[in-house]
Amino acid sequence: MKKQKVTVIGLGAMGTALAKAFLNAGHTTTVWNRSPEKARPLVAEGANLANSLEEAVEASPLIVICVLNYKVLRKIIEPVGEALEGRTLVSLTNDTPEKAREMAVWTQENNIQYLDGSVLVPVPVIGSAESLILYSGPKGVYDTYLSTLKALGGRPTYLGEEHGIAALYDMGMMNIFFTSLSGVLHSYALVGSDGVAAKQFLPFAKEVFAVAGSFLEEFAENVDGKHYPGDLDNITMEAAGIEHILEASRHRGMDVGVLNGLKTVYDRAIAAGYGANGMPSAIEGMKTNGKAQ
Amino acid sequence: MKKQKVTVIGLGAMGTALAKAFLNAGHTTTVWNRSPEKARPLVAEGANLANSLEEAVEASPLIVICVLNYKVLRKIIEPVGEALEGRTLVSLTNDTPEKAREMAVWTQENNIQYLDGSVLVPVPVIGSAESLILYSGPKGVYDTYLSTLKALGGRPTYLGEEHGIAALYDMGMMNIFFTSLSGVLHSYALVGSDGVAAKQFLPFAKEVFAVAGSFLEEFAENVDGKHYPGDLDNITMEAAGIEHILEASRHRGMDVGVLNGLKTVYDRAIAAGYGANGMPSAIEGMKTNGKAQ
Repeated sequence: MKKQKVTVIGLGAMGTALAKAFLNAGHTTTVWNRSPEKARPLVAEGANLANSLEEAVEASPLIVICVLNYKVLRKIIEPVGEALEGRTLVSLTNDTPEKAREMAVWTQENNIQYLDGSVLVPVPVIGSAESLILYSGPKGVYDTYLSTLKALGGRPTYLGEEHGIAALYDMGMMNIFFTSLSGVLHSYALVGSDGVAAKQFLPFAKEVFAVAGSFLEEFAENVDGKHYPGDLDNITMEAAGIEHILEASRHRGMDVGVLNGLKTVYDRAIAAGYGANGMPSAIEGMKTNGKAQ
Repeated sequence: MKKQKVTVIGLGAMGTALAKAFLNAGHTTTVWNRSPEKARPLVAEGANLANSLEEAVEASPLIVICVLNYKVLRKIIEPVGEALEGRTLVSLTNDTPEKAREMAVWTQENNIQYLDGSVLVPVPVIGSAESLILYSGPKGVYDTYLSTLKALGGRPTYLGEEHGIAALYDMGMMNIFFTSLSGVLHSYALVGSDGVAAKQFLPFAKEVFAVAGSFLEEFAENVDGKHYPGDLDNITMEAAGIEHILEASRHRGMDVGVLNGLKTVYDRAIAAGYGANGMPSAIEGMKTNGKAQ
């Protein structure tokens, strides 16, 4: 593989892992961090520490930045807009699609090629075959740097020209991750309140989680077709079930914020006329038509 | 198999399926419903329609009741307490563990043998090998009627003497089902707001759902041991991720009640000192110590 020059800005746990992966792949890797001592272990492994941000940018045609959020990113990047001209900036910074879209406008104004990426795996997975990173932005730019970006892992995935799409998929995936596992934890707490160990309940949790997973495809079809058959079950019956879980959770002094939120969604969908429809029709209660929350 | 006498009270969709399953297994099945016309199809298949609730109870040593909730159940059952004396009542009525425990007190006072059960499968699955029904109550009573109850499906599961435990597991399982799938629907709505079809996002949804599922065992161990390693990820970083999803959802005019509930749980766990711990420590934010909600 051809040795490339790449700069990594931001040396938190993830940025450090990204820089290491480039080094391991044999690329000439320049690093920069606000507090330079974080670069020390990387320098020991062969990275070049830039003396300034400008120097870091000028060292490579490809600049990868991974910082806390786009607010921090803009603070770092805007002052070196001129140095970035004609170069490619790849942000692997977690934020909303809107932030990536705003960045796309700024980079275009400043003649900077720009990709937004989302890392979907934890730090230790970076560089491995399983490492899933989503990208969006100009296809030509992606194709140019794909061979270099492959150092970060085996599953770079291009989603489209529109810059916000990687962050959008990231939000969608992380929302499923957070919400489903919080449901599991709530249930562990619920049975735990009555002295049942999570390990004891585990086979039942695993089974229902797998059953839920088997509905993802059908629900996607229902949602896309706005067609929610209610022959097996309907959201009115389900709302009654949620009410029982709410009552049992409250009785045990547990937090019911998530369940109240869920109940509100169901009630809104029922009020909108979907009471006799199946669970995917709850999505109709997730649209508030811009009403203040 | 020995032909048994069984009475089914409550002929909604589920009650009707239960009665049919007993009939299919060759049992002498007596039925009763507040509005008797619902019994007609069952009578056509060989069920006996009782002329009164007392007659229904007196027709069989085993009475199975499936109605809307325990409030409805108590209204029906309390007036025939005397007729039920010495018989076995099996409730397959969805409600909280507390309601089953209260019922256990009343049945004991009235010399009625009682099991509480929870049907975990939809109506069409009743009677099949996959039909999962959880039971709790006296083991001797369960053993006596197990061969009859097996008509309802291949997976009767006994959980223990304590009457509330079947409903507790039911709540725990249904909570995982509702919460995880609402997360999926929220994500379908989120990507849908930007014109991405659920079907297009589906492979990513499936992948992250499966990854989440792979954590159930580890989380159970963490929760039981109150030990939440934060080496891969911590709830402070995760809370920042949830904040981004909240922001993106609000921006699209979507409901954020569930996400706000989730954020509150994380914030409470962080405030309690778990900020550097992994996701299972969010469970510490689900305990409100009885504070009003």
